[in-house]
Amino acid sequence: MIKPKSINVRDEKLTIEQWGTLIESLHDGNADTAIFNIDERDHREYDAIFLGGGAGGRFGSAYLRAMGGRQLIIDRWPFLGGSCPHNACVPHHVFSDCAAELMLQRTFGGTLWFAPMDGVVTSIKDVVDLFRRGRTGPHAIMNYQSKEQLDLEYILNAPGKIIDSHTVEVAGRRFTAKNLVLGLGARPQALDIPGSDLKGVYSNVNLVETLDYEPSDTVVVIGGSKTAVEYGSFFSATGRRTIFVVRTECLKLIRDAEIRGYVLDRMKEQGAEIWERSQVLRIEENGEGRVKAVIVQTPDGERRIETNFVFTGLGEIPNSEMPAKALGVKIGPKNEIVVNSRLQTSVPNVYAIGDLIGGPMEMFKARKSGMYAARNIMGRESHYEPKDFPDFLHTHYEVSWLGMSEAEARAKYKNVVIIKMPPENPNGINVGLPASDRTMLYAMSKPHMSGYQKLVIDGDSRRVLGAHHVGYGAKDAFQYLNVLVKQGLTVDDLGEMDELFLNPTHFIQLSRLRSGREHLVDL
Amino acid sequence: MIKPKSINVRDEKLTIEQWGTLIESLHDGNADTAIFNIDERDHREYDAIFLGGGAGGRFGSAYLRAMGGRQLIIDRWPFLGGSCPHNACVPHHVFSDCAAELMLQRTFGGTLWFAPMDGVVTSIKDVVDLFRRGRTGPHAIMNYQSKEQLDLEYILNAPGKIIDSHTVEVAGRRFTAKNLVLGLGARPQALDIPGSDLKGVYSNVNLVETLDYEPSDTVVVIGGSKTAVEYGSFFSATGRRTIFVVRTECLKLIRDAEIRGYVLDRMKEQGAEIWERSQVLRIEENGEGRVKAVIVQTPDGERRIETNFVFTGLGEIPNSEMPAKALGVKIGPKNEIVVNSRLQTSVPNVYAIGDLIGGPMEMFKARKSGMYAARNIMGRESHYEPKDFPDFLHTHYEVSWLGMSEAEARAKYKNVVIIKMPPENPNGINVGLPASDRTMLYAMSKPHMSGYQKLVIDGDSRRVLGAHHVGYGAKDAFQYLNVLVKQGLTVDDLGEMDELFLNPTHFIQLSRLRSGREHLVDL
Repeated sequence: MIKPKSINVRDEKLTIEQWGTLIESLHDGNADTAIFNIDERDHREYDAIFLGGGAGGRFGSAYLRAMGGRQLIIDRWPFLGGSCPHNACVPHHVFSDCAAELMLQRTFGGTLWFAPMDGVVTSIKDVVDLFRRGRTGPHAIMNYQSKEQLDLEYILNAPGKIIDSHTVEVAGRRFTAKNLVLGLGARPQALDIPGSDLKGVYSNVNLVETLDYEPSDTVVVIGGSKTAVEYGSFFSATGRRTIFVVRTECLKLIRDAEIRGYVLDRMKEQGAEIWERSQVLRIEENGEGRVKAVIVQTPDGERRIETNFVFTGLGEIPNSEMPAKALGVKIGPKNEIVVNSRLQTSVPNVYAIGDLIGGPMEMFKARKSGMYAARNIMGRESHYEPKDFPDFLHTHYEVSWLGMSEAEARAKYKNVVIIKMPPENPNGINVGLPASDRTMLYAMSKPHMSGYQKLVIDGDSRRVLGAHHVGYGAKDAFQYLNVLVKQGLTVDDLGEMDELFLNPTHFIQLSRLRSGREHLVDL
Repeated sequence: MIKPKSINVRDEKLTIEQWGTLIESLHDGNADTAIFNIDERDHREYDAIFLGGGAGGRFGSAYLRAMGGRQLIIDRWPFLGGSCPHNACVPHHVFSDCAAELMLQRTFGGTLWFAPMDGVVTSIKDVVDLFRRGRTGPHAIMNYQSKEQLDLEYILNAPGKIIDSHTVEVAGRRFTAKNLVLGLGARPQALDIPGSDLKGVYSNVNLVETLDYEPSDTVVVIGGSKTAVEYGSFFSATGRRTIFVVRTECLKLIRDAEIRGYVLDRMKEQGAEIWERSQVLRIEENGEGRVKAVIVQTPDGERRIETNFVFTGLGEIPNSEMPAKALGVKIGPKNEIVVNSRLQTSVPNVYAIGDLIGGPMEMFKARKSGMYAARNIMGRESHYEPKDFPDFLHTHYEVSWLGMSEAEARAKYKNVVIIKMPPENPNGINVGLPASDRTMLYAMSKPHMSGYQKLVIDGDSRRVLGAHHVGYGAKDAFQYLNVLVKQGLTVDDLGEMDELFLNPTHFIQLSRLRSGREHLVDL
């Protein structure tokens, strides 16, 4: 066996900038050079090898190390953090920020200091390029923080091969551990129709890796859930005709019907075409291996869309094949590795975490499952099941929610009270509230664009059952508000809080206006 | 006595749009027409007359009404809500949004789809005009919500005259009540130097009411606290040379030294000149009653600035003169009406609320003091003292904080642990984190502009002592986070929360990275 190249960074204290340079050099043609950050002076057996240094593996490692254990991360990429900073959460947020910004600039184009935007189609490739150049910074921070601040051991830029439930081979060496933690993530669900392998058919992964031309003025997005809508809203904001082809209904995951309606109305107002109960039958080739057109089956018959750009957002499928083959771990119906609430797989001493164990494929679950696996490995029995978590997505807006929709609440409680903004109004929603940071220009002259929010309350117990928000600046709040709601937050508790006015969630002040009443009513 | 004109809206169900039309018509030359919304069929005595229908009077009325009492608001303006939607919180947020937006557009001008902005000075007057046209919407909602949803009685567009502690005369009629609640607000502290009455010297109040020309390319802002910095940052963002003349130090109210330093550095980077330990000696006239120049005493001697625009942000002074004269209520050293924790003045049955009772002159205090006055009036003894509240201000950024600064914590606790982003780094802060909504473009290519955040923890009890954030999208969260901190939130509690990644406050995930440790250390 030829010994692969490697560099040992253990005794170097690389700055974040030096990490950036190293990561970029490895990306540029040194794919076979492993980065070793191993404490050779520590002769303890590893408590765990984390195969995969994404969100789950890195957080699990950090927690295990913090508890005094010894860990090793092995990752095929030259950086820790996994897909998030490379082709998932971070680029999605870049694109969503661009969508928000472009909607603002288009809405006010030709007024104030805003340049006219009518008919202007802006570049997708420029933003992809900007992200591709800029992502090294976050990558570098992960490596720096993990080594210098979290004291983690890791081997990067080298795929690990599972030998058995205690042994992984990487870059020509074998490492053993008491436990193995699988954090191999997921990949985009592939489209399975004729033409899906043509150049011009993208998922979030290969979009940022390989886009090398400017998409045509019409684009097709396949899917109607988070990823599809988040990327599609950006494409739409660039001024392109954007057609969402959705098998069932778009954004079904937004629970509250009014909130969902508001969100869809705003997408359509920005020009998005949403073809529901439709599916792509095949993708036509231009004779040079590229997409030329998409054929869609709609309720009204077959339609053909000329385009050179198709984006698929069909969900993710766990990368369970390799560990299933190497270890025989039990696999579930969605290709996920089956674990119990201690994150243990069917094979003793083998744990699995993150997207690999199935939904919800969200950052908090990846990280927390890593943390809980670490606790169990270190002898602290801990059970984790994600539930009652808040959620969000981006369109041109930020959309956040927690708890029950109005309909869910009405099905369960007989005295549901709704507090919302804008209020019910004989002339509809075209009024200048809600308003807050980054919606003020809308509130002043395009009021119907300034957002929508709703609080769902059990009128008997006065407890908050659900909260829903479309706008900007409330997503972060939903993390903390969710904890309070799970504690039993009431409309009276909200009325006693100190608002930071103009607060994006008007929940505190609206609750105060009602909370003097013994018998609550809608507002 | 000539009976003033009045219109009775009691039996009309005006839509929000109809309210808007009515308010605008009264603003345009029908200043003496009172709006009556009185329930003449209710023969109960009023539990309270709220003199002033701003934040405190409206929320106090709503709460009292919700408790089953009868109230009457009297306000000189044709709308409820007071100064907030007219010339305070709402315009401030419009201007701050413009500052954030202009900084973004200038930073990326000439790249992506952003028009070049070098040397471009944008209009202040256009934004003032946009606000002036747009503010009627929020005004109209206050009137609509208060009448149709909150069932309040009010008389608007008519100044009330206090006859005695139970009687107010308004629009030719006298109304009596068991109690009188004073909510007359505050006014900007006037500048007291030669030339301060010239045209071109503005506060937040007359800026939006009277600006009728485009300010020169150099402007002077007097003051270094919230209002001065919020408006001044907008002027700076328009491309004008903006000089802050500050008697002591700018933004002393930001408690944490590192956070304050970051904020000031970013203001200066955007071109703001901050002249500390300086004061304006006099303002020169141009021969036509307008400002021509400002003479400033600085530590380095006297300096003269040519400008036609001066903005004063010197704080607010309570409007206590009229009630002091009419009722003899006790006045404090800052012109505030003195109240006890039940909001009672020195005169029986007379309460005072809001800015009229002094600092903190914040929205939450205005509204909550109204609510607590209502409870006391309705026989439910309730004590209110604002303390341990979160706070914020805008520069080009949103800056939010709660609890202790690092220095305050170190003075009180011996084992203070700091968790912050960006991390300490040999090469300084120029790294691409933190990142989140509305900072993503910065994170990708101007990383030092993407924000700064800090969590201050007592390492022994593991409790959060303070939190500090510069960026976007965290202000709302601080409302709810503050409640959790007051409950005794620990770093472990944070580590158990569900983040909505990329969350503007990275506190949850950073805490999780550390919370496995028995002995906490900085991150």
